[in-house]
Amino acid sequence: MTGNDFIKDFPVLMQKTGNGKRLAYLDSAATSQKPVSVIEAVEKYYKVNNANPHRGSYELSMKSTDVYENTREKVKEFLGAESSKNIIFTKNATEAFNLLASSYGMDFVNADDEIVISIAEHHSNLIPWQRVAKVKNASLKYMYINEDTQLTMKEVKEKITDKTKVVSITHVSNALGTINDIKSIIDYAHSKNAVVIVDGSQSVPHMKVDVSELDADFMVFSGHKMLAPMGIGVLYGKLDLLHKMSPYIYGGDMVEYVYEQDATFDAVPFKFEGGTQNVEGAAGLMAAIEYLENIGMDNVHAIEKELVKYTYEKLSELPYVKIYGTSDVDKRCGIISFNIDGVHPHDAASILDSHGVAVRSGNHCAQPLFRFMGENSVCRASFYFYNTKEDADQLIEAVKAAYAMFEKWR
Amino acid sequence: MTGNDFIKDFPVLMQKTGNGKRLAYLDSAATSQKPVSVIEAVEKYYKVNNANPHRGSYELSMKSTDVYENTREKVKEFLGAESSKNIIFTKNATEAFNLLASSYGMDFVNADDEIVISIAEHHSNLIPWQRVAKVKNASLKYMYINEDTQLTMKEVKEKITDKTKVVSITHVSNALGTINDIKSIIDYAHSKNAVVIVDGSQSVPHMKVDVSELDADFMVFSGHKMLAPMGIGVLYGKLDLLHKMSPYIYGGDMVEYVYEQDATFDAVPFKFEGGTQNVEGAAGLMAAIEYLENIGMDNVHAIEKELVKYTYEKLSELPYVKIYGTSDVDKRCGIISFNIDGVHPHDAASILDSHGVAVRSGNHCAQPLFRFMGENSVCRASFYFYNTKEDADQLIEAVKAAYAMFEKWR
Repeated sequence: MTGNDFIKDFPVLMQKTGNGKRLAYLDSAATSQKPVSVIEAVEKYYKVNNANPHRGSYELSMKSTDVYENTREKVKEFLGAESSKNIIFTKNATEAFNLLASSYGMDFVNADDEIVISIAEHHSNLIPWQRVAKVKNASLKYMYINEDTQLTMKEVKEKITDKTKVVSITHVSNALGTINDIKSIIDYAHSKNAVVIVDGSQSVPHMKVDVSELDADFMVFSGHKMLAPMGIGVLYGKLDLLHKMSPYIYGGDMVEYVYEQDATFDAVPFKFEGGTQNVEGAAGLMAAIEYLENIGMDNVHAIEKELVKYTYEKLSELPYVKIYGTSDVDKRCGIISFNIDGVHPHDAASILDSHGVAVRSGNHCAQPLFRFMGENSVCRASFYFYNTKEDADQLIEAVKAAYAMFEKWR
Repeated sequence: MTGNDFIKDFPVLMQKTGNGKRLAYLDSAATSQKPVSVIEAVEKYYKVNNANPHRGSYELSMKSTDVYENTREKVKEFLGAESSKNIIFTKNATEAFNLLASSYGMDFVNADDEIVISIAEHHSNLIPWQRVAKVKNASLKYMYINEDTQLTMKEVKEKITDKTKVVSITHVSNALGTINDIKSIIDYAHSKNAVVIVDGSQSVPHMKVDVSELDADFMVFSGHKMLAPMGIGVLYGKLDLLHKMSPYIYGGDMVEYVYEQDATFDAVPFKFEGGTQNVEGAAGLMAAIEYLENIGMDNVHAIEKELVKYTYEKLSELPYVKIYGTSDVDKRCGIISFNIDGVHPHDAASILDSHGVAVRSGNHCAQPLFRFMGENSVCRASFYFYNTKEDADQLIEAVKAAYAMFEKWR
C-alpha cells in the first residue's frame, strides 16, 4: 500500500494550486484532508438525519441520537476502551485539555503538589497547567529532552516524584515527531500514584493506540487531524476519575435537577456534554474511523514510516538543511522539521508554497520547546498515509530551489 | 412569501417519515434544518479550501483563513456590530455563556454583588451564574414573569439595583416564545451601571436584531438554530469589555509569548479562540446568513408570525388544549407550548410523531420556569420560515387524534 492507493478519495489533493502546480499537502499534523466518504457522511447527516439529539421523542431526533451514540461506541472500540461511558466528545483536543485542567486540575491539585509535563508539549497541554499551578499554588515542572530530542527514563524518574499529582504528556511531539515511550512513562507515574494524561493528537490518527493496554488515565485527541470534520474532539477518561470530576460546560442536556440556586448533574459522560452537541461532527468521525480501519492502523503507520525514512534520507543529503528531532527514524512519526541555511523558515514556506508544497513554518505552538532548543522557528513537513514519494520529491526539489533563490545573498 | 417558497431547499423537509407520513418539522427552536446552499458550502469547504487557518503561509491555509475571517465580517454586518473584533466564534451558545460566566463573571463580580436573570432562562444562561454566585459569594436574583408570562418593567426595576453587576437575559423565551422588551431592560440596567448579556438564541435566527441599536454589552447565539452547521456559535461583545476579560480556552493560536511558567495572549478576538477553530462551521454560517438575508429578516419574522397566529387560533378552539405563554400574539415568536388534557406531554409527542409531527416535550432546559408555573413539562411546537399552514394543520389534526386516543381512559 502507498498513498497512491488513497489519493483519489481526497478531493483537495486532486486539485492543482493557483499557479498550476501539483499540490503536495504536507501539513496533516495541523489538519488532515477529508475523504469523500467523510464529506458524504456529513452531507447525509444534514439531508436525512438532522435534529437535536437526546431531548426529542420523534423519529428524526432518535436518528440523530443514534448517529451520536453509535459514534461514541465506535470510538470506544477504536481506542480499546472498556465502555462507551469513557468517551466524552469535545470540540477539539484543546477543549479537552482545558476541561481536564479545570475539572481535574482545579479539583484535585493542591498547594505544593506537582504537575509534570515535558518541554515538548503543545501550548494546549501547557498553558492550562500554568493556570492550575498558579491558582492552586502548585508547581509546574518540566521534563527536558536530550540532544537527540528524546525524553529519557532517567529524566522521567528524576522529575516525577511522590509529590506529582498529574503527568500530562504528548505521545508524539507535534513539532519534532519524536515518539515518547509512553507506556514506560505511564507505568512509572503510576508507581508514584500520579494520574497520567496523554496527548494523542499526533498518535491516534497515525498508529494503533490502545488506552487499556497503555493504562492511560486520560487520552485526548482531535477529529480534524484524523480525517473527521472540524469541531469534534475526544476525551477518553477512566470512569472512577470522570465520576469524581466537576462538570466543565454548564447548560442544557447535562443536568438532572435545576433549582433557582442549585443544580444536580447527569451521569458520565453526559455531565461533560452541556449544550447542543456536534452530531454532524460525530457522523463524520464515524466515517473517518471506518476509513482508517479499512486501511488498518498498522498500515497507516507503515506507509508514513516509509515516507519519513525516504524524506529524511533525501533531506539529509543536502548539506545546507538542518533536520530537527531524533535521527532514529523508528522513534519518529510522520513529521520532519527542518531549516534551510540562510533562509528564514517563513520565507522558505512561502517559496515551497510557490512550488505547490504546503508546509507550516513557525514555532508550532511549542514556544518553550524551541526556546530550549535555541531556535525561533522551523519549517515542518508532516505526512499522512495519503502522501506519496512524489510529495516527498516535490518537497526536496522545492527546498533546493529555495536555497538556490537565496544564493545571491550569501 | 410563505414556507412553501422555501421547503424545496430543505432536503430533510422533503422526506416522508418512516411510516410514510408527510413530515411536519416543528422543532426548529432546538435545531433548524439546513438548506442545500449550506450543505454545499460545507462540502465545498472540504473539497476545495480545507486547511488549518491563521498559522500557515501556504495557499490552502490562506483560503481557509479567508473563509473564517470573511464569516466574522459577515456576522459583524448581520448584527450591526461596529467591528469584526466584536465577534468571537464559540462552539455554541452554551459555550459562549460559560465563557462569559468564567471570563467576565469570575473576574468582575465580587462578594455582595448581584447577578440578575429572569426565571425564564435556559439552563445555559442559569447554571453558569449559579456557579459564579457561589464562588464569588454574590447573589443570583430572579426576575419573575406575570400571569400572562410577561416580564414587566415594574419587576425589572424592582430587581435590578445599584448592586447589580450583570443582567443576563433572553431576548425570546425558548420555552414560551415570549419576546422580552429587551431594549427597555438594557436601558434600565445601564442606568444602574450593570452589564447586560442578551441570549439571542431564539431571536437572532428569527428577526432583525441590531446589537448597536439595542446597545447590548454581549449577545450570544448558536449557528445550528439558524440554518448553519452544528459546532459553531457566536459571542458578540463590546470591545472595552472584551479587552479586560481573561481568556477562557487556553491553547494554540490565542497566545503571544509562551514561557515555561507564564504566557501572554493575543489581541481580541483571537485571545478567546484557542485551538483549531471550526472553519467548516464558519463556511456554513456564511451560507446560512446569506440565505436569511436573501429572504430578509423582516419577512422571516412575518412568515412565522402569521403561522403562529394561525396555529394559536386553531389550537385555542380545542377546549382540551392548554396553551402556555402570552395571549398577545404580537409579543410571541414562533413558539407555542401546550398540553393536552389527560395526555402526558411525552405520550403526546410520541403520538404526534406517529402522525409525522415533530415536536419536543419536556422542560425545555428551563426547569425553574416550569416549577414556577406549576408544570412539569409541556409539548413545544416551534416554527421557522420554512414551515407552512399544512404543518400547522397537521399539528392540529394530530393533537385531536392524541386526545381521542386517550378518550377511553377518561
